[in-house]
Amino acid sequence: MTIHNNSASVSFEALTAFIARAFVSVGIPADDSQKIARLMACADLQGSDGHGVIRLPQYVKRILAGGINKRPNIQAHSTASAVAVVDGDNGMGHLVVSQAVELAIEKARTQGVAWVGTRRSNHAGPASLYATMPVQHDMIGLYFAVGNANHLPPWGGMDMLLSTNPIAAGIPAGQENPIVLDMATTVAAYGKVKAKAKAGQMMPEGWMIDRQGKPLLDPKRSEEGFLLPIGGYKGYGLALIVGILAGTLQGAAMGKDVIDFNKDHVTPTNTGQAILVLNLAAFGGVNVFKNAIDTLISDIKGSQRLPNVERIWLPGEQSHARRLDYAKHGIPIAAGVLNELAALSRELGIPALID
Amino acid sequence: MTIHNNSASVSFEALTAFIARAFVSVGIPADDSQKIARLMACADLQGSDGHGVIRLPQYVKRILAGGINKRPNIQAHSTASAVAVVDGDNGMGHLVVSQAVELAIEKARTQGVAWVGTRRSNHAGPASLYATMPVQHDMIGLYFAVGNANHLPPWGGMDMLLSTNPIAAGIPAGQENPIVLDMATTVAAYGKVKAKAKAGQMMPEGWMIDRQGKPLLDPKRSEEGFLLPIGGYKGYGLALIVGILAGTLQGAAMGKDVIDFNKDHVTPTNTGQAILVLNLAAFGGVNVFKNAIDTLISDIKGSQRLPNVERIWLPGEQSHARRLDYAKHGIPIAAGVLNELAALSRELGIPALID
Repeated sequence: MTIHNNSASVSFEALTAFIARAFVSVGIPADDSQKIARLMACADLQGSDGHGVIRLPQYVKRILAGGINKRPNIQAHSTASAVAVVDGDNGMGHLVVSQAVELAIEKARTQGVAWVGTRRSNHAGPASLYATMPVQHDMIGLYFAVGNANHLPPWGGMDMLLSTNPIAAGIPAGQENPIVLDMATTVAAYGKVKAKAKAGQMMPEGWMIDRQGKPLLDPKRSEEGFLLPIGGYKGYGLALIVGILAGTLQGAAMGKDVIDFNKDHVTPTNTGQAILVLNLAAFGGVNVFKNAIDTLISDIKGSQRLPNVERIWLPGEQSHARRLDYAKHGIPIAAGVLNELAALSRELGIPALID
Repeated sequence: MTIHNNSASVSFEALTAFIARAFVSVGIPADDSQKIARLMACADLQGSDGHGVIRLPQYVKRILAGGINKRPNIQAHSTASAVAVVDGDNGMGHLVVSQAVELAIEKARTQGVAWVGTRRSNHAGPASLYATMPVQHDMIGLYFAVGNANHLPPWGGMDMLLSTNPIAAGIPAGQENPIVLDMATTVAAYGKVKAKAKAGQMMPEGWMIDRQGKPLLDPKRSEEGFLLPIGGYKGYGLALIVGILAGTLQGAAMGKDVIDFNKDHVTPTNTGQAILVLNLAAFGGVNVFKNAIDTLISDIKGSQRLPNVERIWLPGEQSHARRLDYAKHGIPIAAGVLNELAALSRELGIPALID
C-alpha cells in the first residue's frame, strides 16, 4: 500500500482521465463518464477543491450502493416557450444540470430569457461551473441549487430544514474576465467546517452555533450545532427562497425531504437545481453591456483601499488566476485525498492517479 | 404653525388621499398621483415606513426642482418574447416599475417566465411591493433594484461604488400567507442609520466601518464611513450582481454613474430595476406548489426553537401582521414626520394630513 505523505500536482488531463476511468469501472457509459470527469476536474482546476475529485469516493460509493441511476433517461418537459423542467431520472447531477443549462441557452437565444430547472437530479459540483456556461454565448447565467444535506435551521430554530443553498452568477465582460459569483447562503459552507476538522483547527466565531445559541468553535463538534446564515435572518430568508426556486418549484426535494447524502447512499436525493439565462442580445447591445462591465471592473479595481489591503478582487478573479496557474503547473492534490484515491483505484482495479 | 409632539394614527385612505393631493398640487396628473400615493401608503401600511410617506417631502422637492418628468412617456421596448426594457422617461419610479411588473406578468402568462427591466426610472419605494404583485396571479416575483445613493465600497475598498441594492421575492402559498423576502445586501439599510441618528442612538458593531476599517458606531458620523455588506465579501458580490442585473443590463446607472438623490435633486437618476416573473402554471401544477409551500411554512413554524426564542417567523410574516393591525387601528406616523408633512401641506397649499 502506497502512503502519500505529501501532496502532489497532476495535470488537468491526467485528473480527468483518472476520474473517467473510475466512473467507467462502475458502469457509467464512457461518454457520460468523460463529461462528468471533465466537470469535476474543472472544479479542481479553479480551486473549488471541495467539489472536485475529493467527491469521487463518495460518488462511487453511492453508485455501487445503487443510489444513482447509471443509465438515466434524462428528459426535458417544456410547458411554455421560455421554461422547462428537466427530469434527471436520478442520474449523476453533472449530466442533468449540463443538459438543463444547454436547453436554457437555446431557449434564451430566441426568447431573450429562459428558466430551466431540474428534479430527480443529484449533487453536481460547484455552482459556478453552470452559471458560467452561458457566458461564452454572450449570456448571463444565474444558478440556484438545493444543497445535499441540511445544516441550517430557520432563524431562531433548531430543526435543520435548510441547506447552504448556493447562488451563482456568470456575467460576460469585454476585455476583462467574466465576473463569477459563487456563494453559499451560510457564512461557511459545510465543506469548510470539514476541512477545519481535518486540519485540527478551530473555527472562527460566526460560522456555527450550538443548541444553546452559543458560538461553536470546535469543528469536531459540528454535529452538535448549526451553520449560521449570512447577515442573520437575511441569509435565512435567502436560503429559503433559493431552495424554493431550485427545489419546490420543480417538484424537487426541499425542507424535510432533503436527503443527507453524506449519511444515506441509497435513497434517491431528488435534488433540484435551476438556471436562469439572460441573452444580452435582447437588451440593446452586447458590446454596450460588455464595455459597461469593463468600466465597472476597472473602477472597482482602481478603488482607494482600506489600510493593509493590497488589492481589490472581483468575484471569480481568484478562481481565474488559479485556473491559469494550475493549467501551467498542475493541480495540487492534498496528501489525504491522494491516499483516498489510491485506495479507490485499488478497490476499482483501475490504474492509480499517481504511480 | 402646529407642532406635533406626538405620533398619530391615520387611515390608509386618508394617507393615500393626502399623498395624492400633494402630487396633484405639483403637477402630476390625477391618475398617476393616485397610483403613486396608493403604493406609498401601502409601504406605510406594512411598516416599511422608511419608504412610505416619509419620502414625500424629498419627492416633492425633486419634482419642484425639475428632477422628475411629471408627464413621462413611459415606453416598453421588447426585442424578444419573454424580455422587455421599460424606458421610464424620468417619471416617478412607482409608475415605471408598476408598468414593468404588469408587462412581465402578461409575458409570463404565455412564455412561462419573463424578465422586464427599467431604465430612466426613479426611486420606487420598497422592493416587496413589486415582488408581490405577481403573487395574486399565481406567479413568483423576484425583484432587483439599484439603490439611489452609493454607501458601499467594494470589499477592501473605500470608493463608494455600490448601493444597498436590494433583492425581493414574493412566493405564493395556499392556506398560508405568501412568503415575502425584501432585503438590502448590506447589514443595515441606510435608512436605518438615519433613524438611529434621529433617535440619538449608537449603531451596533457590524453596521458600518470608518476609513481605517474600524467599527463606526456614531450614526452622526456616518458620512465618514461605509456600510458593511452581509457576509463580508459575499454581500459585496451580491450587491454587485444585483446592480448589474437591475442597472447595467438595461442601460441604467450603476457604479460611478449612480446619482445620490439625497444631495442632488435635479440630475435625472437613470435608476434601474428589474423584475423576474415565474408562472407556476408552467411548472407542473399551481396547487402542488402551493401545498408544498404550505407544508414548508408549517415545518418551519413548528421547528424546535433556540433558548429564549418565542416564535419563528417566515419572511414577510411581520409585515403581514402589521398590515392587518394598521388597517384596523390606523397607520402610526411619527411626530417628526407629522411636522414635516404639516410644513409641506402649508408650502403646497393643500389640506393637512391631520388637522
